[in-house]
Amino acid sequence: MGIGVGPGDPETVTLQAVRALHHADRVVAPSLAPDAVGRAESIVRQVAPDLTVERLVFDMSAVAGDRLASHRAAAAALTPHLDAGEEVAFATLGDPNIYSTFSSIAAAVTAARPNTRIRTVAGIMAFQDLAARSATVLLDGTETLQLVTALDGPGPLVEALTNEDQAVIVYKGGRHLPAILKALANAGRIDDAVIGELLGLPGERIGPARDWPDQPASYLATVIVAPSKRHP
Amino acid sequence: MGIGVGPGDPETVTLQAVRALHHADRVVAPSLAPDAVGRAESIVRQVAPDLTVERLVFDMSAVAGDRLASHRAAAAALTPHLDAGEEVAFATLGDPNIYSTFSSIAAAVTAARPNTRIRTVAGIMAFQDLAARSATVLLDGTETLQLVTALDGPGPLVEALTNEDQAVIVYKGGRHLPAILKALANAGRIDDAVIGELLGLPGERIGPARDWPDQPASYLATVIVAPSKRHP
Repeated sequence: MGIGVGPGDPETVTLQAVRALHHADRVVAPSLAPDAVGRAESIVRQVAPDLTVERLVFDMSAVAGDRLASHRAAAAALTPHLDAGEEVAFATLGDPNIYSTFSSIAAAVTAARPNTRIRTVAGIMAFQDLAARSATVLLDGTETLQLVTALDGPGPLVEALTNEDQAVIVYKGGRHLPAILKALANAGRIDDAVIGELLGLPGERIGPARDWPDQPASYLATVIVAPSKRHP
Repeated sequence: MGIGVGPGDPETVTLQAVRALHHADRVVAPSLAPDAVGRAESIVRQVAPDLTVERLVFDMSAVAGDRLASHRAAAAALTPHLDAGEEVAFATLGDPNIYSTFSSIAAAVTAARPNTRIRTVAGIMAFQDLAARSATVLLDGTETLQLVTALDGPGPLVEALTNEDQAVIVYKGGRHLPAILKALANAGRIDDAVIGELLGLPGERIGPARDWPDQPASYLATVIVAPSKRHP
C-alpha cells in the first residue's frame, strides 16, 4: 500500500494516512542508505512516533537500467512479507500516484507477484503546499492547469506558458532553474511565478521567481505560475 | 482562512486542517440555504464534532453578476467578526486554491477590508482521491498532466487529449458527460479513463469510462485519463 505523506510538513498528512500507517503490519520508506533517514521516514516518525520504519535502499541517481534493478531488489525484499500475508505500507513523499517511486515499486511487485493487491492513500502535493504558503490562487472559473517536469530542461515549460489562461507547475526543475527563470522572463510570466524548496523543512525557502538566485536549486524545488490573464 | 477539507471522505482531511478548524474563533461553510447542511459542513462535523459551523448562504446557480453580489454579501457577513479580531475559518471542498469558492470570498473580503490577512490550508483534491480509489497511476517520469474544466463543453479536453504522454483531468463536466465520453472515444483514450462522483459519500460511483452511463452526471463528477503511451 502506497501512502502519501505530503511534501515535508507532518501537519499536511491526512487522517487516512496516519490510520493506514498504524493499521499496516509493516511500514517501509525509501532511503539512500541503510543508515540514512529519508524524508518520508522522518515524516512518519513525527506523525506516528511509536512505529518502526524499515528502510528500502534506492540509488536515486542510478541510470534507467540500474534503477529498474534497484526497484526489483526492493520488490524482492518485500515479497516474503507479502507472502506471509502482511499488509505492507510504503510511505512516500507527496502523492503516491504522481511522480512517485511507489508506482515503480508497485509495478515491480506486481511483475513478481501478480495477485498482490495494490492500494494507495492520496497525499498533499508540493505545489498545493506551496500555493497555500505563498497565498497563490492557482485556478478559478475555466482556467486550466498544466503540470510539467523540467528534468531535461525548460522545453515543456516554454510550451505550457504560451496559454496565459493556464496555471503552470514545474517539478524536478532544480538543476535547470536558471533556464526556467529565463523562460519565465521571456514569456512575460516571471511576476506570476513563485518558487519553493524544502517545504515544511529546516532551510525552507519560498519566494517570488523574480527575486530568486540565478543558480541551481534542490532537485525537488517546485515552481508555480499563476494564470496571467487575471491581471491585465 | 480557507481550509481545504478534501472531496468528501472525512479521512482525507489533513492534521493541519483539523488543527486550524479547532484553533479558529469561528468556523463557516458554504451552504445553499440557512437550513441546508453543505458537504463541507458535513465533513467538519465528522472530523470535529464539538465545533459549531455557521452557514454562509450562496446561490451556486446564480449568473456572474448575481454571484459577485452573493460573494459580497458573504464577505459583508464576515466583516464584523474580522473587525473584532476573530480568526475565521472557511471550510471548503477540495483545495482552497483550486477552483474554490474561497478564492472569490477572499477577494470580496480583501476588496472591502484591504488589510485582512488571507491564509489557506491545502486539501486533497477529488482527482487525487479518485486516482487512489481506482488504482490509477497518473504520472511517471517526464509525463505531464493537464487539468481542464468542461463547464462550456468538451473543447479544452479534446485539445488536451492530443498529447498521449499527458494525463488529463476534467472537472465540472457532469452536465456534458455524454460529449466527454464521445471525445474520449474519438481520441482513442476511453480505455485509459476513469470517472467518479460523490467520492467518499453515500451513492459514490467509480468506474471505467467505457462502462459509464451515457447521461449527465453530478456537477462535481471527475474524469481522470491516464497517459496512453505507457501501454503501446
